[in-house]
Amino acid sequence: MFQRAFLVRRSSIDLAQSSDTQRQSALLAMADALATRSREIVQANVEDINRSLATGLNQSLISRLKLDEQKLECAIEGVRKLAYLSDPLGRRLLHRELADGLFLERITVPLGVLGVIFESRPDAVIQIASLAIRSGNGAILKGGSEASCTNKIIMTTLQEGLTSSEIEPNTLSLLTTRQESLALLRLDGLVNLIIPRGSNELVRFIQDNTRIPVLGHADGICHLYIDSAADLSHALRIAIDSKTQYPAACNAIETLLLHHEIAETFLMSAIPEFQKYGVKLLGDDKSHALGITHCANEQDWSTEYLDLVLSVKVVQTLDDALKHINCYSSRHTDAIVTNDNATAQKFLSSVDSSGVYHNCSTRFADGFRYGFGAEVGISTQTLPPRGPVGLEGLVTYRYLLRGQGHISSEFASGEKNFTHRDLPL
Amino acid sequence: MFQRAFLVRRSSIDLAQSSDTQRQSALLAMADALATRSREIVQANVEDINRSLATGLNQSLISRLKLDEQKLECAIEGVRKLAYLSDPLGRRLLHRELADGLFLERITVPLGVLGVIFESRPDAVIQIASLAIRSGNGAILKGGSEASCTNKIIMTTLQEGLTSSEIEPNTLSLLTTRQESLALLRLDGLVNLIIPRGSNELVRFIQDNTRIPVLGHADGICHLYIDSAADLSHALRIAIDSKTQYPAACNAIETLLLHHEIAETFLMSAIPEFQKYGVKLLGDDKSHALGITHCANEQDWSTEYLDLVLSVKVVQTLDDALKHINCYSSRHTDAIVTNDNATAQKFLSSVDSSGVYHNCSTRFADGFRYGFGAEVGISTQTLPPRGPVGLEGLVTYRYLLRGQGHISSEFASGEKNFTHRDLPL
Repeated sequence: MFQRAFLVRRSSIDLAQSSDTQRQSALLAMADALATRSREIVQANVEDINRSLATGLNQSLISRLKLDEQKLECAIEGVRKLAYLSDPLGRRLLHRELADGLFLERITVPLGVLGVIFESRPDAVIQIASLAIRSGNGAILKGGSEASCTNKIIMTTLQEGLTSSEIEPNTLSLLTTRQESLALLRLDGLVNLIIPRGSNELVRFIQDNTRIPVLGHADGICHLYIDSAADLSHALRIAIDSKTQYPAACNAIETLLLHHEIAETFLMSAIPEFQKYGVKLLGDDKSHALGITHCANEQDWSTEYLDLVLSVKVVQTLDDALKHINCYSSRHTDAIVTNDNATAQKFLSSVDSSGVYHNCSTRFADGFRYGFGAEVGISTQTLPPRGPVGLEGLVTYRYLLRGQGHISSEFASGEKNFTHRDLPL
Repeated sequence: MFQRAFLVRRSSIDLAQSSDTQRQSALLAMADALATRSREIVQANVEDINRSLATGLNQSLISRLKLDEQKLECAIEGVRKLAYLSDPLGRRLLHRELADGLFLERITVPLGVLGVIFESRPDAVIQIASLAIRSGNGAILKGGSEASCTNKIIMTTLQEGLTSSEIEPNTLSLLTTRQESLALLRLDGLVNLIIPRGSNELVRFIQDNTRIPVLGHADGICHLYIDSAADLSHALRIAIDSKTQYPAACNAIETLLLHHEIAETFLMSAIPEFQKYGVKLLGDDKSHALGITHCANEQDWSTEYLDLVLSVKVVQTLDDALKHINCYSSRHTDAIVTNDNATAQKFLSSVDSSGVYHNCSTRFADGFRYGFGAEVGISTQTLPPRGPVGLEGLVTYRYLLRGQGHISSEFASGEKNFTHRDLPL
């Protein structure tokens, strides 16, 4: 295990020095290899599904596990698109003359090696591996055992693709046992970032068991606040979309906050509409009095249902809504519907979530929708990268300083002076 | 303790919404208050020093603890300068039309609350508090007990200054007991970043005992490599400066790597010069044979002397130097002296340290020297902020999305399409 991780690390050092074109060609070679072996990959996936059906895996996991020809084609298309996104490496973020003849640059460079632990979805291997290579990072991946046949053949195929490119196949590695994934968490010196994609429990377990930085979101408790100055027909379609378009997603809303002045009118049309979509509403006392049959308890405000369930609360003021959000939000994405610009501005500047939205659905919180091409996940951490993390989030920077024999004592003595003059980027 | 941290958090939410001018004025008010009370602050420091002398604190710690009128004036001047640095908040990093009428922005915002644990130097309170307020962050500070009188009066004075500004004095708080600083590490929900300034042991202890992200550097094992194509007189002055200008600094070099072709000539003039500066050289076999009297052992390559001691190794090629650096460097700052541009380029792109330097001293790795005005420390982590961390490193960003009733299902159905058109920043 250590040996394999060491190989990934060593290959990643070469990868970091590859050109944009080399990484681009590598992605195209990976896509070609996947296309060539698509029949075998789909066949391996059928095996995984049959085995999982036999062990009684539930239907929603089976559907995540499934990789049919169409889904695979879509994933391959994603790799090609990523190849043509602009290079996140070698960008100059700062360019400054520190003193006569002494020049500072801040340049984007890869993180190094990513450790990615994910569940079910085997297309994640394709997406993550291609994001890693495009951004100049090595990657060690550990998928769920239910997808083991699919993951294995995909990884072999991706490495085959790399063989016909100028990038080392060893920049990618697949772990297969739980023991190996525990060992991964201890590879401080070799792995630079752990990305868990899975349940809250998985994320917390990883955070508590590694000194390597972890990128991830724990919960997705998103709010929609409908202000007294909202266009109520907009509000309703946004509420329905934010809850029902894909309720298992982390960017779906779990709580609806209603300003008391519009609560009655809004619920009159909203209750039947939610019913039509099969959404179970749980209300606080006030919204219960306005027709919501089920009651919400304290626990509900901090529950991520990931299902067609929505808690509803009536608030007196914008400040009450902000207080509720600051208390219960998981700082993923929170939205307001209002036609009052001052109210919107206050909401956008007060809510400290990675996404704060005005008059649109929370479901837009996504790397593809933001135009990042793909994402490794959505970070609800405070420090960058925050929100949907694509290529740009997988790089760091390095300071380059070039002099002509410059030494610090000349500046300490006052013999020379700093100029600190910014130059064009 | 929790109550006080909660107050800092609450005040920091208001601070995050303050204007550039309000934060600027607050810093000037803090500087004025310090100037008014300067005599009392210096007097409190004398008390701390007398107490520490009585308990037998060593001389280098006493000199770090000392805050005389001149040092204090310098620190106050630093606060005023920081007031006039440009605002790191509210910067638009991304501006994109996602679809007709749907606009995405990425805007810089404060991190929230900083927890800073530092040793000895009481001027750190002034520097950190002013960096925090300028960047819109609350701060909870814990200084060393040897500086307790000085730290207390400085904090009271800073808060007095804030009272006459529009920023809440509660955005700053000083902890005084070890128990409180342990409690600080457990304030996951209230504190967003821990910044330890002190020994390696302190940093490691903190990393192992908190789930809050930690900004810091563990070791400063910096290298200087003198290539066969180096200007040897430049090389020598850079080597002397990098080692002797302030040997206790983390950006001083600990190991000198010499290309075998120039090793003999270089050492002939370097050995007496280092001797003049009182530097003890420890050599590998080859450099020992070239006149270095003391021998380096395996342990030396990973030792941060923080003293006038330097280990020396002769290497056969640039690749050998790179291998040594990649193995032993703490990824702080590593430098090359060469007149061969291809060699320099290879070094700058292969060494993955936060600073990679060509033909200049490693001592330039510093926030002031980079033109950042001030720094909370130097990060040797891979993820940003990396290197010297000033105002810019104390902010994060948030995504703002503004629509006109946009919902995701219209895009999923193909009824509407993403445009992903970048707009001027």
